[in-house]
Amino acid sequence: MNLAVFVPPQAAHGRVPVVYWLSGLTCTEQNFTLKAGAQRVAAELGLMLVVPDTSPRNTGIPGEADEEHFGAGAGFYLDATQSPWSAHFRMYTYVTEELPALIAANFPADMRREGIFGHSMGGHGALTIALKNSGRYRSLSALAPICAPMQNNWKPWHPFVRYLGEDRETWKQYDACELLAHQRFPGTILVDQGDADPLMGGLRPELLRDACARAGQALHLRMQPGYDHSYFFVASFIGDHLRHHAKALT
Amino acid sequence: MNLAVFVPPQAAHGRVPVVYWLSGLTCTEQNFTLKAGAQRVAAELGLMLVVPDTSPRNTGIPGEADEEHFGAGAGFYLDATQSPWSAHFRMYTYVTEELPALIAANFPADMRREGIFGHSMGGHGALTIALKNSGRYRSLSALAPICAPMQNNWKPWHPFVRYLGEDRETWKQYDACELLAHQRFPGTILVDQGDADPLMGGLRPELLRDACARAGQALHLRMQPGYDHSYFFVASFIGDHLRHHAKALT
Repeated sequence: MNLAVFVPPQAAHGRVPVVYWLSGLTCTEQNFTLKAGAQRVAAELGLMLVVPDTSPRNTGIPGEADEEHFGAGAGFYLDATQSPWSAHFRMYTYVTEELPALIAANFPADMRREGIFGHSMGGHGALTIALKNSGRYRSLSALAPICAPMQNNWKPWHPFVRYLGEDRETWKQYDACELLAHQRFPGTILVDQGDADPLMGGLRPELLRDACARAGQALHLRMQPGYDHSYFFVASFIGDHLRHHAKALT
Repeated sequence: MNLAVFVPPQAAHGRVPVVYWLSGLTCTEQNFTLKAGAQRVAAELGLMLVVPDTSPRNTGIPGEADEEHFGAGAGFYLDATQSPWSAHFRMYTYVTEELPALIAANFPADMRREGIFGHSMGGHGALTIALKNSGRYRSLSALAPICAPMQNNWKPWHPFVRYLGEDRETWKQYDACELLAHQRFPGTILVDQGDADPLMGGLRPELLRDACARAGQALHLRMQPGYDHSYFFVASFIGDHLRHHAKALT
């Protein structure tokens, strides 16, 4: 697995909090690293940034890289249960266990202070991972997240069918709106969403707003006029998100 | 010619100052646009950013795109005088006349408030253009600029040979250190240079420092420990440079 790590200058004086960035469909660790403009702000705030790839790659599974919403670049931050994907596509365990262990062993990170955020599919990952591990992550935010993947009608197959099987009950642990029926994040979730995002119909921020309202979950959802789904949108608000994390972590 | 323009939100209320960014060898207008993280800061400061390509392209001249230091991506912000290049490679006139006219006609720019900066070959462009047009540009800075191109021994040919001919006297108008013998910039020139830049031997910041000292030219040269020549270096200090320009322009 490739990954990118930004170590801020404050690490010269002691362990620093770590924020995981989860990227969207088709991305590698490079998109955020090159385009988000995050390092300059993270350097000011003293945050380590850990940026994994979005899936395993070159697993040898036939057709692995043929689709935009499934396989390579589309790990959806879940643990696949269906063969042959279950042997490799275990991004949930990677992000919550293997990757933090690797960071703890190799970088000056304070693993008691973890935050998580992401974009699009990575926003889905951040929301579901933080909700499933209530109390572990001290800060949570997302940019244009996929809020309710079970409501999406990806063609020709919903990616969860091949990762998790046909039983939709097993999908609910990877859907933020479903998780909010019985999980809370102990803090305010910051979410930015461009109102000119052409993918809005598949992101469903209104369902997240409703689910948080029903659950009593604190949510700061900001609809940003004129913004689309691109990394220009991410770069525009990355500073706000990093400050949101720093407020909880530093 | 491709170009990128960032219009800050302040332009909704009136014309805004314009800062030209000149890019380095091999770049198009995309490198800065995607990697520098400049827009967020320019939006705060109310600066329009104008980012031209680094040369004409697809001119039909044989071998135009065969070399890194010459031809496509390597216009050196000069007006070629030698055939066949003189018919197309006129970046000096493009940046100082054609491009500003295009901006004035199409964007809410206040053309009485222009600044200029750049990276590497683009730093050379910014320095030479501002020195040759003393009084026009109100602010000037550069990141890892080529300070003394006449001292460079590019192989197999110095690019100026084919653009300008063998008479080195004609080269001096495109060499910042030579221009400082008789030109001044009416303000402080901000220059950042990474001290781990592998191209340092071709950039010669020490010659710029000496030429400015001899000329009585105000220069703020910052050697940045551990930084290389990449856009990570640019992104690290782009905020300081934009604030340097805003101080003079707003």
